[in-house]
Formats: sequence, C-alpha cells, structure tokens
Amino acid sequence: MPSKGIDRYLVKPGSKFEMASVDTSEKTLWEDLTKDDHEATYDMLRDELQHLQKVLYAQQKHRVLVVIQAMDTGGKDGCIKHVFSRIDPQGINVHSFKKPSEEELAHDFLWRVHPHVPRNGQLVIFNRSHYEDILAVRVKKLFPDEVWKRRYRHVVEFERMLAEEGTTIIKIFLHISKDEQKKRLEARLENPAKHWKFNPDDLQDRARWGDFMHAYEDLIGKTSTECAPWYVIPADRKWYRNLCVANLMVEKLRSLKMEFPHPTWDPATVRVED
Amino acid sequence: MPSKGIDRYLVKPGSKFEMASVDTSEKTLWEDLTKDDHEATYDMLRDELQHLQKVLYAQQKHRVLVVIQAMDTGGKDGCIKHVFSRIDPQGINVHSFKKPSEEELAHDFLWRVHPHVPRNGQLVIFNRSHYEDILAVRVKKLFPDEVWKRRYRHVVEFERMLAEEGTTIIKIFLHISKDEQKKRLEARLENPAKHWKFNPDDLQDRARWGDFMHAYEDLIGKTSTECAPWYVIPADRKWYRNLCVANLMVEKLRSLKMEFPHPTWDPATVRVED
Repeated sequence: MPSKGIDRYLVKPGSKFEMASVDTSEKTLWEDLTKDDHEATYDMLRDELQHLQKVLYAQQKHRVLVVIQAMDTGGKDGCIKHVFSRIDPQGINVHSFKKPSEEELAHDFLWRVHPHVPRNGQLVIFNRSHYEDILAVRVKKLFPDEVWKRRYRHVVEFERMLAEEGTTIIKIFLHISKDEQKKRLEARLENPAKHWKFNPDDLQDRARWGDFMHAYEDLIGKTSTECAPWYVIPADRKWYRNLCVANLMVEKLRSLKMEFPHPTWDPATVRVED
Repeated sequence: MPSKGIDRYLVKPGSKFEMASVDTSEKTLWEDLTKDDHEATYDMLRDELQHLQKVLYAQQKHRVLVVIQAMDTGGKDGCIKHVFSRIDPQGINVHSFKKPSEEELAHDFLWRVHPHVPRNGQLVIFNRSHYEDILAVRVKKLFPDEVWKRRYRHVVEFERMLAEEGTTIIKIFLHISKDEQKKRLEARLENPAKHWKFNPDDLQDRARWGDFMHAYEDLIGKTSTECAPWYVIPADRKWYRNLCVANLMVEKLRSLKMEFPHPTWDPATVRVED
C-alpha cells in the first residue's frame, strides 16, 4: 500500500507556525505521478481506510476523532464526502458545529462538544469544532480578548485528557488561497444548484481574510501538540487534498496496530445443536 | 447575617494536605453558642441562601457547581436535603453519579460529567462526582496506576476551564471518623426503614478505610486550586456539618456580588392597553 511523507504537513508541536510556509497549490507528494496513477493510489488508500475502520469497529478499543477546519469553500464537506464515503456508516459519525445556540452559549464552550466525542471503536469527524470558539470569537470580537486567549489552554488540556483516556486525535486545516476562494464562491453564484451553499455572510469573513489567516496561524501553532497535532493540507487542488487526507488517515490508523479481537471462547468447543 | 471563618476548612491550594489535621468531631466555629442559637443561625443562613439563589437565577449570569464527596454514611444525602431544601427547585439540580455504565466506560471519564455542569443562573450539586474516577479506581485497582495519576491533571484543567468560562466551583468533603461510620451503619441495620440505604458492599470499602483516607488526602491536596478549592468539613456532628455547609454556600454566593437584573426597557414608557 502506498504511503508518502505526509508528515511534511505536520505542524511540529512547540514550534512557531507560519501559514505562508504552506503553498496552497502545491502537489509535491504526488507530482511525479500521472492522473491515472493518482486515481489508482487514491482508490487503494480508500480501500485500506475502509478496512482499517472495520478493525477499529470490531476491536472496540480505540477512539478516533478527526477535526476539520477551513475557510468557507475550503473543502470540508467535499473532503468528508470523498475520503470517508466508503466507510460503514455504523462506525462513523460526522458532527457539524453551527453558530452556538442560546442554550449552548449559556454553558462553557466545550459543553456542546464533549457529548459528541467518539466512544470505543468509533470514528468521529468534527466539521468545524471548538476551534471556532477561538477563531470566530477572536476575529469577530464576540467576547473580550482574554476569553479566547484562555481557550488555547482549555482546548489543549481537553484534548490531552481525551488522548490520555484513549482517543486518537487528528486535526486538519484545509488551506486554500484567497484567489481560490474567489473562484469557488463565483462558481456557487453561477450555479443555481449550488446557491444553497452560498451565504452572503461568507463575504464578511472573506473581507477579513488577513485577520482569519493570522488567527489560524496563531491558533494552529499554539494548539498543535503531541497528543493532538495539526496538519495543514494544501487544498487548492481537490485531488491533492483528498489524497493527502486519505493518506494521513491511513497512516494514523495503521500506527494504532489494531487487530480483530480474538474470541474469548474456544471455537472448537462450540457445537450448534440440531 | 452571621458569617464565620469557614476558611478554616479550606485546603490551601498548593499546600500539602493532611487528613489528620481536621478533627471529624470538632465544633470550633459555633461552640460558644447554645443549641437554640445554632438553630436560629442555621435558619438565617438558609433564608439568605434561598435569597441568593433567587438572584442567581434572575441574573442568569453565574453558574455554580457544588461537588460533595464523602465515605458511605458521611452525610451527602442528608446534607443536600437539609441545607438546600428551601431553594426553588427550578433553579437547583442534584446529579448523583453511580457506578459507570458500559456506555460511560467506553468514553473518557469526564464524558458523563460534562453534560450536567450548570448553565447560567443554575446551581448544580454533584452527589459524588468525577473524583470517584480517581478514588475508587485507585483504591479498588480498577485500572493501572497511570490512569488515575493522569486524571489529577485532567480534573484540575477541566475545572479551570469551567471556572474561566464562568462557573463558581465549591468542593466539599464531609469528613467522618471510622467510629462514627460504624454507628451509622449499625443504625441502618437496626432500622428496617433504613435498610434500603444499606449495601453490604459498603463494608468492603470500610475494610479499606485507611486506603481511602490516604487516597482522599492525596487527591484533595493535589486538586484544591484557586479556581476550585476543596473544603474538608468536620461531619461527625450533623448540626455542625449543616451549619458549616450553609455558611460556606452563603459566603461563596455573597462574594459573587450578584444583583437582580435591571430592565433593558424603561418601565415608565410601558403602557398596558385596555
């Protein structure tokens, strides 16, 4: 099975991260392959991911949490759909976090998140996450600065607890350029079948692109930990983004060295009566 | 309103705590008063507590979490019933944590706790808590030592997050002697109306009294923080225990300097039409 140096996109814990260090349109890991080869590789990766999830589910030992963040049109929905669609729906759960409700805001910011973390044998994907409670809060100035600043520690320690209790955490930022977003937004506007995905409010976030990049840069650098590292994936090219995420998932799940559980009874002694 | 030096029972954050430093049968704070005076004082404290909770509920600003731990017969149920029974049930919620279910054990240990933390304006009491996942796990050797050792940090950071997000946390250990427990267990055995409260398994915990005291001592010392301090309350005398807890609650709620919310509209401009 193919495996590439996906750690190229790992944000090293404890290091200062610079967003500009990742080229949104690069295709280094697979640039030597033809388009047909990309597709064959992607196909193999998805098969292996499907297999690994089966073992994860059967073994009921590990919990896997994937956090996906991106700017609007960054490819969160598309990536989830493409990379994870072969997986048995019984073992995977995608949770999308929207604007918090009044009830959610009346609690600490992790209160609405915690119930959705994976149980043994489960793979959970967060489409947006508790990181919005730092990012959006910071850029849109929803609360005083000390609130989001304290939350760096809160998320790091929350994730440490999850990890030490048995959860494998993979955090992915799908990184697109401002130009690429423009193309995608225009495509949405031009295609009536995609109008439902367009929200005029997204343009407000776009107008603060620099603020968001700065907030992401700071956030990713400060919350990439051994327990829960960030991967910043070039996402201007959808095929490359999907290959990277599939590859990352396969590498992470392989590293758990999972196996189907051995029966606790001796199959030789079991007889099915007439 | 009466207020005594309840900080006598505060476990100073960062200090080494010795269980033997608290005499389970002492009555220092109110020993100069007669029994009638105790009752009058207790009555006033409960009235004030009732009032403070009204403001808490009306203001919808603060969240209050009370964690109560004790050995069996230590008085958790009795204390909750006595001290908090005058409070409007709409604004108070008591959550008892039992032996974790299979579903709960398939998640991190804080997963079952987090949904029950208070929202704005709410007072929540935990009758037993996430601390059992350290104590019972340690004394009964339910998981390897590294599991409960890591959990010290997990609870401290969880509580820090809750506190920084707006929750006032008060942790109470009702401290009784082994002799006092014997009396109470015997009383339960002798009274058929109390048989439902007796569980033969409690005798197993009693047989490990020394181990539990050692585990509590270590736990309380290491998890008493500025954000979420422990109070070790002498609890052999029920009247004294109740006075102390009522007094502690009143002091903590007073210190929030709460007030009824001011209307955001001008009452003078409102006219109720015919």
